[in-house]
Amino acid sequence: MRQLIDYSLYLVTDRDLCGGTGVVETVLQAVAGGVRVVQLREKTLDTRRFIETATQLRKELAPLGVPLLINDRVDVALASGADGVHIGQSDMPYEQARAILGPKAIIGLSVETQEQVTEAKRLDVDYLGISPVFATTTKKDAAPPWGLEGVRRIRLVTNHILVGIGGIGADNAADVLMAGADGVAVVSAICGTASPRAAAEALCRAIQR
Amino acid sequence: MRQLIDYSLYLVTDRDLCGGTGVVETVLQAVAGGVRVVQLREKTLDTRRFIETATQLRKELAPLGVPLLINDRVDVALASGADGVHIGQSDMPYEQARAILGPKAIIGLSVETQEQVTEAKRLDVDYLGISPVFATTTKKDAAPPWGLEGVRRIRLVTNHILVGIGGIGADNAADVLMAGADGVAVVSAICGTASPRAAAEALCRAIQR
Repeated sequence: MRQLIDYSLYLVTDRDLCGGTGVVETVLQAVAGGVRVVQLREKTLDTRRFIETATQLRKELAPLGVPLLINDRVDVALASGADGVHIGQSDMPYEQARAILGPKAIIGLSVETQEQVTEAKRLDVDYLGISPVFATTTKKDAAPPWGLEGVRRIRLVTNHILVGIGGIGADNAADVLMAGADGVAVVSAICGTASPRAAAEALCRAIQR
Repeated sequence: MRQLIDYSLYLVTDRDLCGGTGVVETVLQAVAGGVRVVQLREKTLDTRRFIETATQLRKELAPLGVPLLINDRVDVALASGADGVHIGQSDMPYEQARAILGPKAIIGLSVETQEQVTEAKRLDVDYLGISPVFATTTKKDAAPPWGLEGVRRIRLVTNHILVGIGGIGADNAADVLMAGADGVAVVSAICGTASPRAAAEALCRAIQR
């Protein structure tokens, strides 16, 4: 039995954007503001510091019932006791990640093309990340945006939980849910804002409308 | 029971240095020339391609009885079925890597300071990498060299298998063994040479003297 997860508001971290506030403090404020899932994404940190950060976040988030996912790195997820991983199409293949992490781990998979959506239908992933929904400057190697039309198209062909990511903020989050997504993932709408808590609260209000 | 490994001549790969010959072809030639342990080190490859390269190398090396170790990435070692990992002081802590990979995995650990040598005495690592023995340009963040005197000093205080790395070639490999190392690891003495096989053969002759 897998856990029932509330994917409605999902934070992906960005160390550069978090700046002086730091990743851990940003996450804690965002969770206080209503973020329900956290993905730790680190593309330049060495493995030891990545594990240390993940371990610290896990200790803070577990008592709050907020799952911690690790971007790409199955080793960091194992060492930190995180709840799972989010993998992209150039990360570890899904079946291998599942075999290593076991049936209880949460594993999300990014889909960037229609072909990947079709391919993912046969996988027992916990959710699909629709990437990117809108144009984004946070992820440098992002694919062309799906748009709201793309979200609707994916919703018609799969029963998977769908989380939209890319260019989503308080102004358009509700549109993504109305198009068929179960949740929205944000980076710059929270990381690096003056108040990550206030930013998360604004997103919560937007998606509850 | 752990495997008995011949650490005498140990290759660490460098994709940039291998150039057009490629990592896999360089490794196969080097093994034909006498290399007995291979460490796949990739610092820029995405996870999927890293796993693919490791899986291919494992298939080629396993029938030859040559162990394949993965630099830093426990996830890549698990997914590829490699024999183990080599970890540095900013990678996953040794105890966690051992817990994840199990008792049969080969785990080597780099030591760059006397304090790390002392710390490593209590660990059941398979070998210590003395890093660097001589000045090296291959590893950009290398610590100050141990020198042959450093190798002798480490030999006096630990029973671990010792593999020297850093600035070692056919001209000085025998000195490193005479100072107390059980093997020598090389990068540029093989990767990117006109004939990795001939380079490995020359190193073999040097260490058999």
